[in-house]
Amino acid sequence: VQPAIIDLVCDNLGAYSVEILRGVIGFATDIGVEVVVSTVPSATLRARNREDWADRLTETGRRGLILVVEEVTAVQTQAFRSRGIPVVVIDPLGPTQHGVVSVGATNWAGGKAATDHLVGLGHERIAFIGGPENSECSQARLHGYLASMMTNDLPVHDGYITHGHFEESTGFRALGQYLALPHPPTAIFAGSDETAMGVLNQAAMRGIRVPEDLSIVGFDNTYVAGQSTPKLTTVSQPLHDMGRTALRTVMRLLAGESLDSDHVELATRLVVRNSTARLA
Amino acid sequence: VQPAIIDLVCDNLGAYSVEILRGVIGFATDIGVEVVVSTVPSATLRARNREDWADRLTETGRRGLILVVEEVTAVQTQAFRSRGIPVVVIDPLGPTQHGVVSVGATNWAGGKAATDHLVGLGHERIAFIGGPENSECSQARLHGYLASMMTNDLPVHDGYITHGHFEESTGFRALGQYLALPHPPTAIFAGSDETAMGVLNQAAMRGIRVPEDLSIVGFDNTYVAGQSTPKLTTVSQPLHDMGRTALRTVMRLLAGESLDSDHVELATRLVVRNSTARLA
Repeated sequence: VQPAIIDLVCDNLGAYSVEILRGVIGFATDIGVEVVVSTVPSATLRARNREDWADRLTETGRRGLILVVEEVTAVQTQAFRSRGIPVVVIDPLGPTQHGVVSVGATNWAGGKAATDHLVGLGHERIAFIGGPENSECSQARLHGYLASMMTNDLPVHDGYITHGHFEESTGFRALGQYLALPHPPTAIFAGSDETAMGVLNQAAMRGIRVPEDLSIVGFDNTYVAGQSTPKLTTVSQPLHDMGRTALRTVMRLLAGESLDSDHVELATRLVVRNSTARLA
Repeated sequence: VQPAIIDLVCDNLGAYSVEILRGVIGFATDIGVEVVVSTVPSATLRARNREDWADRLTETGRRGLILVVEEVTAVQTQAFRSRGIPVVVIDPLGPTQHGVVSVGATNWAGGKAATDHLVGLGHERIAFIGGPENSECSQARLHGYLASMMTNDLPVHDGYITHGHFEESTGFRALGQYLALPHPPTAIFAGSDETAMGVLNQAAMRGIRVPEDLSIVGFDNTYVAGQSTPKLTTVSQPLHDMGRTALRTVMRLLAGESLDSDHVELATRLVVRNSTARLA
């Protein structure tokens, strides 16, 4: 019997996608499934003819498809479904849609936990740095932050919310802007570890000590979080488990099982390291 | 026409393997080749029956194999060669062997460049932290270091050479040992970026400032090097290009072309960031 072959398509192979890839590949090894990995930029993916793509997958004997990409709609996955090729999407930036099976993390709860941690350390002036404004996961993290601030009766000062691209440069720029405010924050919840790295770098450049002068929490718990100086307190996304769950879901769909829900979220978890401290 | 499928087998998906994977996948996308990615621990790989493995690759229509693993011998690759499946090995830990096609980096030149850089900054007490003692690439880096020290008439003090596992813990422990020496080094050439991260973490724990009190050079230029605080001066291994070259070589062998050499080394390059400074 030849092993089943699954396609894993990412729009890039950044730290985030790579963690998911590790989960998919690890589980695939366990269950004897083979995984073809490819990268397709989001723009190319949007323009790609789904019928042709689905035909090609069928011809090459592919049994399923896992997508780690910005945006997927039910219409886009129809071509695969009609050929019996299960598609599972990892944490799409857009809202989850009926008919698209997706796996994500508890972004709202994670954002709330990150902010609660800072409040628990005595911080009151806490700012947020998010990803794209229209991104579902960034919105959920922002609203987790807002829920914590509201519950704790803390004001969100003007200019305390920034959007960007989940990248280093977003965090680097944002801290520069925050320091120019009349009441700069004493703590920052950054929407991704890469963003937090940018905050760390800007702080180092200006001689601001972390965590003595400024506390920072990231999001993702990718590789960089455990390697930075100081090591980053962050919200762990179970990226590895999300990859496993995506592949497990593909296999269940292939076996004709029905799913309890089109969308599942795996629990996030706060990992406290050295970038946060009690307000002096 | 169905695209050719190549297998990429890594013994793990660490930062090093992932950079190579990015190179392989990126080039595969460009030339319309598909890549099946899998991980097999070194011990499992050594025990695996090569004839069965080669049979399975043939049956599933695989056209080539790229290995990112610790150890490969000509005997082990014979089963693939006899079935017309080209095998290319990335920077094997063991010595290059006749009949095994491999791609590496100029480890000796890179080690020399790293040490020359520290000497140029006025350092004279320079220590080295390597990987496994029997590893070919670690030996080449060590001897690059020794060549620089010798050329510059600098003594290598007792205890200034440590071996380990190219891991964070190796660097963390090594700096502890160096600080207990009668004449601790003022600069360290770490054999990998992960090792250098361990040195950075030990230094931060002890309040030793980098680069003011201690200069550190890494090796690899993986993702972490640009993200640490301070950012790491390191020797860039062209891991991405090594991945590309490995796939290109597989395709050339498939096309029946002959190679100029069984082993090629791509040039390393010193990337100066913020972890090295002139001796005060």
